Amino acid sequence: MSYRIGVDLGGTNMAAGMLDASYQIVKFATIKTRQGGTPEEIADDMAALVWNLAEDAGITKEEIELIGIGVPGSVTEEGVVEDANNINFYDVPFGAMMRERTGITIHMVNDARAAALGEYVAGAGKGSETFQMLTIGTGVGGALIVDGKVIAGCNGAAGEIGHMVIKQNGAKCNCGRRGCLEAYASAGALKEKMQRAVLEERKKWPRRKESVLWELCGHRVEYLNGKTLFKALEQEDELAQELFDEYIEYLAEGIANIINALQPEVFCIGGGMSEQKEKLLAPLRTSVMDKIYTKHSRIQTRIVAAELGNNAGIIGAAYK
Amino acid sequence: MSYRIGVDLGGTNMAAGMLDASYQIVKFATIKTRQGGTPEEIADDMAALVWNLAEDAGITKEEIELIGIGVPGSVTEEGVVEDANNINFYDVPFGAMMRERTGITIHMVNDARAAALGEYVAGAGKGSETFQMLTIGTGVGGALIVDGKVIAGCNGAAGEIGHMVIKQNGAKCNCGRRGCLEAYASAGALKEKMQRAVLEERKKWPRRKESVLWELCGHRVEYLNGKTLFKALEQEDELAQELFDEYIEYLAEGIANIINALQPEVFCIGGGMSEQKEKLLAPLRTSVMDKIYTKHSRIQTRIVAAELGNNAGIIGAAYK
Repeated sequence: MSYRIGVDLGGTNMAAGMLDASYQIVKFATIKTRQGGTPEEIADDMAALVWNLAEDAGITKEEIELIGIGVPGSVTEEGVVEDANNINFYDVPFGAMMRERTGITIHMVNDARAAALGEYVAGAGKGSETFQMLTIGTGVGGALIVDGKVIAGCNGAAGEIGHMVIKQNGAKCNCGRRGCLEAYASAGALKEKMQRAVLEERKKWPRRKESVLWELCGHRVEYLNGKTLFKALEQEDELAQELFDEYIEYLAEGIANIINALQPEVFCIGGGMSEQKEKLLAPLRTSVMDKIYTKHSRIQTRIVAAELGNNAGIIGAAYK
Repeated sequence: MSYRIGVDLGGTNMAAGMLDASYQIVKFATIKTRQGGTPEEIADDMAALVWNLAEDAGITKEEIELIGIGVPGSVTEEGVVEDANNINFYDVPFGAMMRERTGITIHMVNDARAAALGEYVAGAGKGSETFQMLTIGTGVGGALIVDGKVIAGCNGAAGEIGHMVIKQNGAKCNCGRRGCLEAYASAGALKEKMQRAVLEERKKWPRRKESVLWELCGHRVEYLNGKTLFKALEQEDELAQELFDEYIEYLAEGIANIINALQPEVFCIGGGMSEQKEKLLAPLRTSVMDKIYTKHSRIQTRIVAAELGNNAGIIGAAYK
């Protein structure tokens, strides 16, 4: 048998998985990322993590074909981490360093792409040819995979579907433009909009008791987020429904744009919001279907939720 | 030597080119498309065109490796034309019919994709890996090519970048949505906007003589188009400059969206407007550069004009 190890190197933890030939995690291990550690120290820690994992799994070095490492930043094909500010790596030849420490072939990849590749090879996109990932977090990120390869573009920077303007001269976005999808559909944008709406409602009706969102956040709007919204929807709150409908409308606009341009076989939504599964996806599909050019096509893009959570990054790092 | 023949089957003409191994047209021939002709008649005509072309070029049947045919509609991989309404082909196995008549391998492709492939292999995109085409005509069409293959999507319908909403709830588009790029950046949309603007100006200042666009169209707004706009710009007309600036702003918004998502090596603008070359491209590049996420990247997408005109469709049909 031949195995691969996938490692997700984050600012807080590094998590590793021993993968069998079908990209299933047969053994898992995680340690804290040494805070303020030098690249050398972090490479030492990672090598130790890898050997411990192999030992626990009862797998010899010779059985390990490849170690894939996902890093939170940009990576060259040669395995140099160009810029990963939350682990303080700048132009670090981390691939070569790990190769030296382990004697095993090293494959380095950006962590967002690793997560997309993981879902593609072993999760929501399994078996598909063209696969679009859209991850809703503080921002809105994405990756397009065609025939097993992430479309990296001429400068390795492709995938920024959050920075697609859907409303010219609209809300200000962190990228400097106005009206980007991210400015409407990120978890951060939703949170802000909820806060404003709840505070406004309080101003208008200070004595109204039935403000569900206000109660749910314990009268502290900074605790409002996607989860609170879904809880309020369960209680059939009108304001929550309004906010949700508007959110779906924005998100669907962006998704429909991408489907019209690329018609991926699978369109996968990741990030915290996607844990709501059909509560998010069912209304989203209806809205996207209403917008796309190909509503009458026999074959349609499947809009699905990510399945692997944090494991996606481990699995995808080892996919090549 | 081995040759290929590319044929562009249009509603009015069918044009064929004999291509050498580097996709240069060494001999060209064209005939009228028989109006109201059956698929059999059109196949007979095309076979005759092909043999005449070979004879004129002094090339024997054995030297012809492949005949590629571009058709204005959707085509299956097996060479069945599913739906091409301006030649009245519905579920016609045209590939098989041509194979029967010629004994040569036939390759069928949608004509818009053939045009993109032509520019990719022998025109503005020569040597690039990822290539995005955007064609400005009555509508706005497109095709993405990655490593020599058009991204067709799960249902063969990818490439509709004109139907990307850039202004939510904006101008009505033919596809049913509001605010699509096509509703702002197509030649048709520009024409309409010019007509409205000139008529409004006439209403406001009926005696003003210096309305450059009004003079250029011979006082008939139906003659206004992209060419008139560029002529008026040469005369430093203010209204024309306003209309042009607005047009560039819309087009750049769409292009920046695609660059952020895909970072193609080459972004090629085709269609009548692209004949203006740098007069269109220089201001467009400035506006796109201002909008993209990667303005500080060392490597940038090259924004260029199509080079091959109608020959692109002939060349690209034979590319495989």
